[in-house]
Amino acid sequence: MPPSLRNDSIAAIATPQGIGALGIIRISGHNAIEKAGILFPKKDLNAVQSHTLHYGPLVYENELIDEVIVSVFKAPHSFTGENSVEITCHGSSYILQKIMEALVRIGVRPAQPGEYTMRAFMNGRMDLSQAEAVADLIAAESGAAHKTALQQMRGGFSKQIKELRQQLLDFASLIELELDFAEEDVEFADRKTFVDLLNIIETEVKKLADSFKLGNAIKSGVQVVIAGRPNAGKSTLLNALLNEERAIVSEIPGTTRDTIEDVIIIDGIKFRFIDTAGIRESTETIERIGISRTLEKIKEADIIIYLYDINTTIAEILEEDLATIPEGKKVILVGNKADQLPNTIDHLPKNNGQWSMVNGQWSISLSAKTGQNLESLKKMLVESLDLETELQSANNTIVTNVRHYNSLLNILKAIDSLKEGIRNNITTDLLASDIKTALYALSEITGEITNDEILGNIFGKFCIGK
Amino acid sequence: MPPSLRNDSIAAIATPQGIGALGIIRISGHNAIEKAGILFPKKDLNAVQSHTLHYGPLVYENELIDEVIVSVFKAPHSFTGENSVEITCHGSSYILQKIMEALVRIGVRPAQPGEYTMRAFMNGRMDLSQAEAVADLIAAESGAAHKTALQQMRGGFSKQIKELRQQLLDFASLIELELDFAEEDVEFADRKTFVDLLNIIETEVKKLADSFKLGNAIKSGVQVVIAGRPNAGKSTLLNALLNEERAIVSEIPGTTRDTIEDVIIIDGIKFRFIDTAGIRESTETIERIGISRTLEKIKEADIIIYLYDINTTIAEILEEDLATIPEGKKVILVGNKADQLPNTIDHLPKNNGQWSMVNGQWSISLSAKTGQNLESLKKMLVESLDLETELQSANNTIVTNVRHYNSLLNILKAIDSLKEGIRNNITTDLLASDIKTALYALSEITGEITNDEILGNIFGKFCIGK
Repeated sequence: MPPSLRNDSIAAIATPQGIGALGIIRISGHNAIEKAGILFPKKDLNAVQSHTLHYGPLVYENELIDEVIVSVFKAPHSFTGENSVEITCHGSSYILQKIMEALVRIGVRPAQPGEYTMRAFMNGRMDLSQAEAVADLIAAESGAAHKTALQQMRGGFSKQIKELRQQLLDFASLIELELDFAEEDVEFADRKTFVDLLNIIETEVKKLADSFKLGNAIKSGVQVVIAGRPNAGKSTLLNALLNEERAIVSEIPGTTRDTIEDVIIIDGIKFRFIDTAGIRESTETIERIGISRTLEKIKEADIIIYLYDINTTIAEILEEDLATIPEGKKVILVGNKADQLPNTIDHLPKNNGQWSMVNGQWSISLSAKTGQNLESLKKMLVESLDLETELQSANNTIVTNVRHYNSLLNILKAIDSLKEGIRNNITTDLLASDIKTALYALSEITGEITNDEILGNIFGKFCIGK
Repeated sequence: MPPSLRNDSIAAIATPQGIGALGIIRISGHNAIEKAGILFPKKDLNAVQSHTLHYGPLVYENELIDEVIVSVFKAPHSFTGENSVEITCHGSSYILQKIMEALVRIGVRPAQPGEYTMRAFMNGRMDLSQAEAVADLIAAESGAAHKTALQQMRGGFSKQIKELRQQLLDFASLIELELDFAEEDVEFADRKTFVDLLNIIETEVKKLADSFKLGNAIKSGVQVVIAGRPNAGKSTLLNALLNEERAIVSEIPGTTRDTIEDVIIIDGIKFRFIDTAGIRESTETIERIGISRTLEKIKEADIIIYLYDINTTIAEILEEDLATIPEGKKVILVGNKADQLPNTIDHLPKNNGQWSMVNGQWSISLSAKTGQNLESLKKMLVESLDLETELQSANNTIVTNVRHYNSLLNILKAIDSLKEGIRNNITTDLLASDIKTALYALSEITGEITNDEILGNIFGKFCIGK
């Protein structure tokens, strides 16, 4: 058993680094309360009730470290499902370090990254997809990312997967029964019913897999590329968007300076403006993007803002440029420099800042320079995602995790193979093997089936203290 | 009454900014439990016992924000002395922000800097010097700074001040009595006894005031200047010291990169190596420092390391250079490049790395290049502070706060004036006035007497959440 699977007591600083009013050290393990008690002479922590708080000095070898609050959680009623103690001390790095040192000296092991959440998983407090959602929840920077992580942590996604798995499992047992009576050539499991079931599961799984595109965008940010001819005002537009939203972004600490420059959160959705020199520099024209890495970026983009000078651009140019953008991409046509023509905005199709379709694309006019109609562009960015429809079609579950997405693809592949097999009247044992593959992929998501490598991969990405 | 003196409910994020496993929001005020209860529908928090923990969803207007642990502290058994609630949530800035928003929307005010500690002070949970120690404790980066802050927070210093104040107060009431019977010209307060008392108080206060030099060094770091002629190896020595201790320093997060470069913590004491170009650059010689800002630095320094090349420096040069260092400064004479002479170290006074006095200064030889005897220099730096003796002479109380130091100086001035007055047989009412001045200065330290401006000054320096 790897060290991470034991129930020895582990400790870690659970609060961010830096100076604050309070800091927390979390201890978990079968003898966590005993161990914490060694440093907390004021009370017998073993004798106190679960879910109680105790104030007093924290002392190691007669040396006072701090006055602290100790929270006691008795197994199984804790995050990890084990006996747990939280020490809330003054938020000084020095004190936190001293307490960690003292704990290590009395035989508490410093926790590995993600070890608390791993223990919660191992002790059945949550399944694997819920555990993964804990990390996503902590990392969430936007309302949408927060919401999907929270829903996943509370088990919405797991429930769907488990239901699908149960249906498949019920059928699998009939198939297994056939195998037991293989020589008698009976068919307990009706093939027609099975295909119907497979179709239902396939539809469900496909919905989930399809939601990953949106889920990934929500988690990592919707990629937006601003394209357009030189002097269309691309940089001005990006700066205008950034300046307007900078204040909101900077309310969220931990966002690095670099990221701030190109990330904008609008209505709880993170938009990531892809910064390619080719797009920002006015020497790059949309005609020349064919061979540049800008095309790569456009390919990866979720949304393309095509910007043109509303005063000088003729319809032919517009059509020509739009033809270079790959089919099926979400494009927002933005006519810039509306401030230079008197009453421009009023004379545009669906005036007063409302948008309409031009050449089959969403269209709007604005002035990046004065900020006129900028608000409408932001609304358009959000609405172009069509979040409501997407959520409905995915039964309100959005897959955000690439590991889950890969498992879902594996399930689809296995179902395809099963359907093909039934069409070709393959033997029951081959059928049983394909069912196992599908079941395995389903079980991987929630962690009914797993291995140390997968666990290591997942929890290794957590930070220490989680 | 300024807003900070009300008992309305306030809230603040109490944990450092950044991503961590857990974050805490602290709410305090007469209706803090009620307010927190609005967001925690699972249980009636008003009905739960003090010092209990409750797990459940945190919800604002039907929107789930997070699964949290709520800690309930009922007045007066909390840090502030008021009803208090701590919400421990996942350590995401986004979630913390959302919870703060929800609290503000239901009428909880964001706390001002230091407002929790200020309330603890206003509610008699701690006196002013203890409150100041809370900030020092959180900022402490070294063992010594941590220890002095902790002792002050626990009231060691306050107790001494209060005892002195009581003695003076007892005497003052006798003086006041005399004033009541002023026309009868009686003397209730024996002047001889009073002078004896003043002498005792003066001795005590002087000890405390004297301890400030050390206390300030402990808090801000002991200032060390490395001086010496060109090519003595000053930079090499500094780098050798820094490289050796860098690992230890960097264990303490929050120390900025810039600070790391010149701060070394040895045996729990912070040493601040003053970085003047004049000292580091080999073009600067000790003879020329007279007019440069290097002399300034030497004046401010607590310790001067005078470095010389042990292979080439003759005694006359040494004496000449040392003569330029102001009287009374702690100097450590360090003979460098001991590695270039075979067996040099063995042939030095008090060999094997022990030190002795040369020209009345502590002396040692080492090699900054090879690291030979570096450990001894570090020991010498610590021992030169003579911490034990200083602590004993200050009755184990070290004053670290410049506000307290100034009050102590004011007390000494008032005592001086009192003694002078008694010698000159001044009138009782003048005496009473001087006693009041001394009492005022004593009361200022612990905060028996204070005003909004002083409080604003003190607590305004706290960060929000404290």
